[in-house]
Amino acid sequence: MPVPTLILVTHPVVGTTDGRTDDDHEARSQPGFVLADAALPQLSVLDLGVTRGDGVFETVMVSEGRAPAIDAHLGRFASSAALLDLPRPDLDVWRRAVLAAIDAHPPAPVLAVKLVLTRGIESGAPGAGVPTAWVAAQAARDFTLQRENGIRVVTLDRGYRHDVAATSPWLLQGAKTLSYAINAAALREAARRGADDVIFTSSDGFVLEAPTASVLLREGNRFSTPAPELGILPGTTQRRVFEFLKVYGYETDAVRLRASELGRADALWLLSSVRQAVAVVELDGSAVGFDRELTAQLNEHLAASGR
Amino acid sequence: MPVPTLILVTHPVVGTTDGRTDDDHEARSQPGFVLADAALPQLSVLDLGVTRGDGVFETVMVSEGRAPAIDAHLGRFASSAALLDLPRPDLDVWRRAVLAAIDAHPPAPVLAVKLVLTRGIESGAPGAGVPTAWVAAQAARDFTLQRENGIRVVTLDRGYRHDVAATSPWLLQGAKTLSYAINAAALREAARRGADDVIFTSSDGFVLEAPTASVLLREGNRFSTPAPELGILPGTTQRRVFEFLKVYGYETDAVRLRASELGRADALWLLSSVRQAVAVVELDGSAVGFDRELTAQLNEHLAASGR
Repeated sequence: MPVPTLILVTHPVVGTTDGRTDDDHEARSQPGFVLADAALPQLSVLDLGVTRGDGVFETVMVSEGRAPAIDAHLGRFASSAALLDLPRPDLDVWRRAVLAAIDAHPPAPVLAVKLVLTRGIESGAPGAGVPTAWVAAQAARDFTLQRENGIRVVTLDRGYRHDVAATSPWLLQGAKTLSYAINAAALREAARRGADDVIFTSSDGFVLEAPTASVLLREGNRFSTPAPELGILPGTTQRRVFEFLKVYGYETDAVRLRASELGRADALWLLSSVRQAVAVVELDGSAVGFDRELTAQLNEHLAASGR
Repeated sequence: MPVPTLILVTHPVVGTTDGRTDDDHEARSQPGFVLADAALPQLSVLDLGVTRGDGVFETVMVSEGRAPAIDAHLGRFASSAALLDLPRPDLDVWRRAVLAAIDAHPPAPVLAVKLVLTRGIESGAPGAGVPTAWVAAQAARDFTLQRENGIRVVTLDRGYRHDVAATSPWLLQGAKTLSYAINAAALREAARRGADDVIFTSSDGFVLEAPTASVLLREGNRFSTPAPELGILPGTTQRRVFEFLKVYGYETDAVRLRASELGRADALWLLSSVRQAVAVVELDGSAVGFDRELTAQLNEHLAASGR
């Protein structure tokens, strides 16, 4: 994985930035971003993105130069920012910045393009009050083996009740924040248990999501995923998979699923933008049915560069 | 708050860094850190400290050039790193880096010195596998008014049961991590409710801590603080306050306290390194007894640059 192509977004949010406003002719005539060198340091040690994990991100998958789910990612980026009371991202600027990053990157079969918006420099220091924002495109890690062979998963408690997004919005459930230390720690715990990934469960026993993926469950011709009101991220890949499954006449549903019910699945997947659809072939040490053909079909569809 | 004095710690952990080892003569003859310019960008956009909030920190209070609690902070820094499976910080290097930052900073009555250790550059990119580390010293915000007048506090659910540190260590409770977006969100929620700060409670009703402070409760001549096994940070300032109170013959205890019991306190404080002891004069809209004299005594003791 070489150094990514980096674009610093100078006008990331709607309204004033650097003393300029939307109505400012100069602001509108500029692209709102500049190419930068990711091999050089670009961030201040006073950025709240690093001192507080205070910001949001998205990772957009680009296949053969196209980003089929870019709208869904941009929409979720804006939702995450709103949950954190960040200024509203100017999605037109971000879309153009993503496309510029793709253009500037050497051709690659699959790119992962990351969008990051932080709260900027700490209050009181020079430069405070202006969000920090960038887009970084890099060749994606190759997940072919995981897609072909499946992965082993363990369930881990995420500690929250299923309803905290409603009762306690300051816990930021449903926002894709930079505060992902727990997600990384859960993946290390999975490795200690000999597994590749995690399915989080709520403290009251409901299936939630993986640290960086949605959960998909098959029972007969019915496919389900945990409902967004459980305080999980609405999956952009899960949405594309449901669209595909509906075309083929399958039933799809967003549900409240008990962790104890995972075992009755005919097949189980983790869905995410860059890794796409990966079958769970072992859950907490027990074998899970592996629908190899459908997995391949899903991944063929997901890699297709848009309609 | 001007730009801080910044020191990049080049040899932050025990064992190899940059291909050098502890036994390497050159490594041992070097201080293990260099002065840098905090006005310039110093961090990569690929640093896991910012992309995942994956790192730990401490903030050491320096009064009149001395850091009375530096040992406690260094100890907790090492504990936090261990909870995150980070390499073990070389506390000798960190101690010298803190002292060097104090020396290099223009004289100020109170400095806040921040220590940060991240997991470094993302796996697969050039430079990965080496922690990123720095010390930043800056003149502390003036909290005199809060110390003299007290603050208004609301209780907010932290979402976790009181026992998750034992049942679910991957939730990293008790570690001071860079993933503080929730702490920042809770403080914004407090502001929306017309309050200055927050006391977090567990989902099963126990008093925990504030987003960046410990809780101290007085009932008669007995002082208590929530016990560390509740998944909270062991407070360095709380420890110093207990030492002080014991000298004056007060009873001190670490307890499990129901949120409903907070109302029976004769007085209530938040304790933290830089802000020191701040009385809670209003809790969820109800007045709390304000022990002005003891508050002043505590702060006089905490600011004393001794021992």
